[in-house]
Amino acid sequence: MKLNLENSTLKQNDIYARDYQKKIKDIHQRLHSADHSAGTTWADYPENYDTKEFSKVQKLAKQIKSNSDALLVVGIGGSYLGAKAGIDMLVTKKTDVEIIFAGINFDYTDLAQKLDYLKDKDVTVNIVSKSGTTVEILSTLNIVERFMKNKYKNDYKSRMIFTTDKIKGYLRQRAIAEGIETLTVPDDMGGRYSVLSSVGMLPFVCAGLNAKQIMAGAYDAYKALCAETIEENPAYQYAVYRHLINKKLGKKVELFASFSPRMASFGAWLQQLFAESEGKDGKGLFVTPLTFSTDLHSVGQFIQQGTPVVAETFINVEKPLKDTNLSNIALDCPIKFLDGKSMSEINSAAFNGTLQAHKDAKVPIAIFSIDEINEYNFGYLVYFFELACGASGYLLGVNPFNQPGVEQYKSYMKELLKN
Amino acid sequence: MKLNLENSTLKQNDIYARDYQKKIKDIHQRLHSADHSAGTTWADYPENYDTKEFSKVQKLAKQIKSNSDALLVVGIGGSYLGAKAGIDMLVTKKTDVEIIFAGINFDYTDLAQKLDYLKDKDVTVNIVSKSGTTVEILSTLNIVERFMKNKYKNDYKSRMIFTTDKIKGYLRQRAIAEGIETLTVPDDMGGRYSVLSSVGMLPFVCAGLNAKQIMAGAYDAYKALCAETIEENPAYQYAVYRHLINKKLGKKVELFASFSPRMASFGAWLQQLFAESEGKDGKGLFVTPLTFSTDLHSVGQFIQQGTPVVAETFINVEKPLKDTNLSNIALDCPIKFLDGKSMSEINSAAFNGTLQAHKDAKVPIAIFSIDEINEYNFGYLVYFFELACGASGYLLGVNPFNQPGVEQYKSYMKELLKN
Repeated sequence: MKLNLENSTLKQNDIYARDYQKKIKDIHQRLHSADHSAGTTWADYPENYDTKEFSKVQKLAKQIKSNSDALLVVGIGGSYLGAKAGIDMLVTKKTDVEIIFAGINFDYTDLAQKLDYLKDKDVTVNIVSKSGTTVEILSTLNIVERFMKNKYKNDYKSRMIFTTDKIKGYLRQRAIAEGIETLTVPDDMGGRYSVLSSVGMLPFVCAGLNAKQIMAGAYDAYKALCAETIEENPAYQYAVYRHLINKKLGKKVELFASFSPRMASFGAWLQQLFAESEGKDGKGLFVTPLTFSTDLHSVGQFIQQGTPVVAETFINVEKPLKDTNLSNIALDCPIKFLDGKSMSEINSAAFNGTLQAHKDAKVPIAIFSIDEINEYNFGYLVYFFELACGASGYLLGVNPFNQPGVEQYKSYMKELLKN
Repeated sequence: MKLNLENSTLKQNDIYARDYQKKIKDIHQRLHSADHSAGTTWADYPENYDTKEFSKVQKLAKQIKSNSDALLVVGIGGSYLGAKAGIDMLVTKKTDVEIIFAGINFDYTDLAQKLDYLKDKDVTVNIVSKSGTTVEILSTLNIVERFMKNKYKNDYKSRMIFTTDKIKGYLRQRAIAEGIETLTVPDDMGGRYSVLSSVGMLPFVCAGLNAKQIMAGAYDAYKALCAETIEENPAYQYAVYRHLINKKLGKKVELFASFSPRMASFGAWLQQLFAESEGKDGKGLFVTPLTFSTDLHSVGQFIQQGTPVVAETFINVEKPLKDTNLSNIALDCPIKFLDGKSMSEINSAAFNGTLQAHKDAKVPIAIFSIDEINEYNFGYLVYFFELACGASGYLLGVNPFNQPGVEQYKSYMKELLKN
């Protein structure tokens, strides 16, 4: 993966400033502390993950492939976005087991459509909640359980898997009492940092993805990003850069953009990763995913000429999976100059044209390039951004591994429902 | 539709201030001028739309229903987002004609998947570009035409419809020369204000939606929002409110949020409407759509406790299409208190809990409520936001009906491709 900080205002000297060197060195040690209780289990996870759990995922996936057309994953937030990011990036054709996500809201119209779609299919259900208390998940479980019971009678529990805490919580207790199969979310690993655990891996392996390649990418990122100096560590360069575009340039919004629509859900994963890690104590960049050129036709005008509050972070995919050439374009057609060009050339020119236009508009730009979309690069990107986000949060002076603000709407909601 | 400006800082007095009254009166006259050359054809469109064109849409849709399984709509930006918003909101079951959108990027992997899906289906293609010069659309047309020619041999042109300018442009000229069926985008109506024209109506009618009900909603909004005073016109109240949250409260980001996932694409339409209308001369709010409770588990933390730059605008749907009750919840389950409650009650409590939590955090909130999702309310919302956006843009002192900044990446792109 290549990192390129394209911006007209920030100098390398700013990013490599002595003050940041010192802070980053300290942050590096906090992130890589042997004590993970701050929530840093993800930091050496590519080296120290539980291989027995990993084998269990493979075993369960094999069973699901043998008896199911679909895996219904019931998760929200960190129990959903990473899995969805991987599936949308990496799966491009019909697979033996289709992955369907539910539990992401309280809208029964949405859930009923999904259950209707599944009514004549064989289904395994994966309930994902570390705490076992998430209201969306338990509500959806209640409805999905009715559906499964109706479909499979008393056998239905053999088609349920709970992915939850090792010991604690309602889901774990129920699984023990009723003999329901389980997977484990590691200790001290928040939802938004959990995609490489069983949370993401069960859907990935069921969808036919190569889990070992994902972990190989994450491992190589872990090894490549082990330096404690800014110069040698692109994840820290990016963390300092993000800090500076906010603090020094006054930017308020970071757009995660890609010219590959397959990256859209990865952008949504990044949105949670950064927004939930950083958005506290009145701090943080508002982050949002975009897909270009689609969204150049909606927010492109604003980026070019609107309130100058945005920065752009691109994930550039150099080689698409499929390509074709335009041909036989009529002489009077406005795109005659594209005759014989490939769509990937055109997409690449759209990317480079956008860079030039947005540089003219003085938008700070960071670019991450991968050669192609594959499992290895997915794992690499995940680890890269987890590390960058941890460092970026600590630079802001917040705790990147808690989310106290998420609880507030839930308490009001519970009050309203208890009355 | 009900409007409710929930905010702890702005007073009605600020919104009804004499200075704004004068400005709004002037803006009202500009928007409703008999001369539409500024780009205001949409403003009296619900009363003055071309009924002959409307009948032609009905006729073509009838023909498509009789010979096609799918309508492939090739459009981008304003030629796509409004149609997609309506389809995603209003269509909840399998329809005779499935609507597939293409031309929204230069990614052939994406297009190839769609064409593969269509290979054994009967297809009509609708190419949508007012100017007839959009590079995404003409590139996609080149590939789609090959697909159609291969499928239908020399007959394929009878399965093509160009929606374009009345007189000008490559698509119109080709249609005349080759006898291809056409629909017309009205004069002085920019893409983002064109959803109620044939641009949206052909896909809507093909998907079995009631176009007359859509226009009835738009007409009633047009009539209900004809007052030139802020007190009597909720669209102008909202326009002034938006202006003040930016100017007086310093907010930079407006989140269009809904607890109904069916509203997600409507949010994307709003994003283009406002971002492209207002984002010029260094002005405007950055606007982005969110779906709750999904996104409360990603950006909820930021909204609650992050940099205080966001305001929220909710589109609240009071009654969902489908509902069910939770039942037989175990005594030890953390959601035992929800036993017997309906999902819609829970969703509604999530909405009200969110309002309270975000009010505590001093987030300015505007709420628009519709009783249910239907064609009439879609038309009403479209007109309401078009009017609010036009007024809001003029209040900012920009031209809400041009988009000069969108051209810049395109010119660089063309330069790169011509070399």
